[in-house]
Amino acid sequence: MAGRMGGSTAPRLKDVAEAAGVSVKTVSNVVNGSVHVAEETRARVQQAIDSLGYHPNVMARRLRTGRSGVIALAFPELPSPYFAELAVEVIAAARRHGCTVLMDDTAGDPGAELRIASGLGDPMIDGVILSPLGLDQAELVSRERPIPLVLLGEADFGPVADRVHIDNVAAARAATQHLIDQGYRRIGAIGWQDPSPRATAQQRLLGYTQALEGAELPVEQALFPPVRSYFRPDGAAAMRRLLKLPDRPEAVFCFNDLMALGAMRAAHEAGLRVPEDIALVGFDDVEEAEYAIPSLTTIAPDKTKIAEAAVGALLDRIANGYTEPSRMITPGFRLVVRESSRRR
Amino acid sequence: MAGRMGGSTAPRLKDVAEAAGVSVKTVSNVVNGSVHVAEETRARVQQAIDSLGYHPNVMARRLRTGRSGVIALAFPELPSPYFAELAVEVIAAARRHGCTVLMDDTAGDPGAELRIASGLGDPMIDGVILSPLGLDQAELVSRERPIPLVLLGEADFGPVADRVHIDNVAAARAATQHLIDQGYRRIGAIGWQDPSPRATAQQRLLGYTQALEGAELPVEQALFPPVRSYFRPDGAAAMRRLLKLPDRPEAVFCFNDLMALGAMRAAHEAGLRVPEDIALVGFDDVEEAEYAIPSLTTIAPDKTKIAEAAVGALLDRIANGYTEPSRMITPGFRLVVRESSRRR
Repeated sequence: MAGRMGGSTAPRLKDVAEAAGVSVKTVSNVVNGSVHVAEETRARVQQAIDSLGYHPNVMARRLRTGRSGVIALAFPELPSPYFAELAVEVIAAARRHGCTVLMDDTAGDPGAELRIASGLGDPMIDGVILSPLGLDQAELVSRERPIPLVLLGEADFGPVADRVHIDNVAAARAATQHLIDQGYRRIGAIGWQDPSPRATAQQRLLGYTQALEGAELPVEQALFPPVRSYFRPDGAAAMRRLLKLPDRPEAVFCFNDLMALGAMRAAHEAGLRVPEDIALVGFDDVEEAEYAIPSLTTIAPDKTKIAEAAVGALLDRIANGYTEPSRMITPGFRLVVRESSRRR
Repeated sequence: MAGRMGGSTAPRLKDVAEAAGVSVKTVSNVVNGSVHVAEETRARVQQAIDSLGYHPNVMARRLRTGRSGVIALAFPELPSPYFAELAVEVIAAARRHGCTVLMDDTAGDPGAELRIASGLGDPMIDGVILSPLGLDQAELVSRERPIPLVLLGEADFGPVADRVHIDNVAAARAATQHLIDQGYRRIGAIGWQDPSPRATAQQRLLGYTQALEGAELPVEQALFPPVRSYFRPDGAAAMRRLLKLPDRPEAVFCFNDLMALGAMRAAHEAGLRVPEDIALVGFDDVEEAEYAIPSLTTIAPDKTKIAEAAVGALLDRIANGYTEPSRMITPGFRLVVRESSRRR
């Protein structure tokens, strides 16, 4: 009972310091997201925070430091498991720095993206990590309240904000090259958008065409039918179009896993086996890819590194402002070969 | 160019009123989430808001009305597509009332659930919709800042807050009864938790046992192995245990779709066909269930109604306070029969 009886028994900064064997100042640095703490020390402090159940009060912290420790994370497509999995990594990275993450789904709407890039006008939001889809560079530069901002993904806004993204052209080239290496010659692509392709569509199509051209294979427009968005039904519809071609592809590179899983279902409904009749490669390495039947070969961006880089860059800007020029951080990726692309 | 040159050209409340053919007061009622606007009028105003690109400034609104129009939505398992799909519905419902939703992932941590139930101490958050997992009733009642709160899901906290949930016992009974009706006799279940089962586990197991008992089939503990959490790997591990039984089940009811999809993969890896060798039913009707190979039979909670009820109840409390006693709202569900449970 006693433990529940009053606020005075809640663990405090000095209890955490004692348990971790560090100074109160060091705990405070960890909790306030300072980047100037050794990783080993941070881990020890986090462990003490976790085991004691210590939680900084955000309003009290804001009064003390001028910062709340709340950051916003906004993506364009909440139902996309890639964003959900990335969000889990961002939340974990933020938590290691004592920060809370609030998420916003912009649905790719330029107005919604602009509002969140201004922190919704909420003085509690210290900074924002945004994956933009419809936003325009001029709007971003002239936003109402230019709080610290880190952009995720392919869209290039020039040096107006730090940006974290993988090399999409190289990744798409690797995915397509894998199919070429497996002996496939007639290779389609699902994910092109026309009109107004998103940056993702442009860069992944470029990687696809580079790989085909490198292997002296023809690039045919009929082999990359346009899609409206990047969800399962889009992949299924595009696959149905490809299967209607007089000379259908033997393999298809899909610009994300969701479309690949939709395409897989469409192939199944057409009575085709994957990979025996048609091979598939996706992009994102969402958990669903590993559990699909057949399991899906895919490009795995390093989500942990992406999240760590985004949170690290944001907290650095929150703490130190914009004295340094904008940075571009490019975490790696790898090709994960599974059942869907094995040579018949 | 002119359109971009200054804030004065941004659409205002009276532009929306003019376009919708209603009074400024009516637009204001819609934007501020009043529940006293006819659905037809609200739709017309929303259409004008969308076509003009009108966006209320949340800080200005807060100064004018004492409310910001920002509500928080918190769930325990962000990587779960059920929560992502429900969040999309909540965001859409909130948007129809002119509100912005910020999301928080609590990971089921009681401390995190308690902090969000107090709105994180953020004065911008008008109210909270929370799907609790680890929270304790006493903690909830004595929370720091008792802002309007609506609970989602099975956990019963008594009359401390409005709650929206489907009848889980009836839904689990319907799923199991479907397998019985298909002629299966030896039916397992995946999703029991021991120790400390979540409310979901208790209610769905109860529905499962009620259906078996109703058909005079034995209830055997070996047929419902416990799981640690509700993700794909948990379902796969539980299925591997069931398949090791000397007398393995002919069909399995899984307490969510993710576990069913993990179980499906485990059956595939053991060389079994679904449904020919073992039938499967899930729960949630996530989009992935429809695209799985084979497609997954499942219970579809009415996510749109759940979201509308939660947002409606919350906005009513924000506007009118707690003069009325706590309400319990129970939207419906339906059984969606697909390939995974068709009788061999």
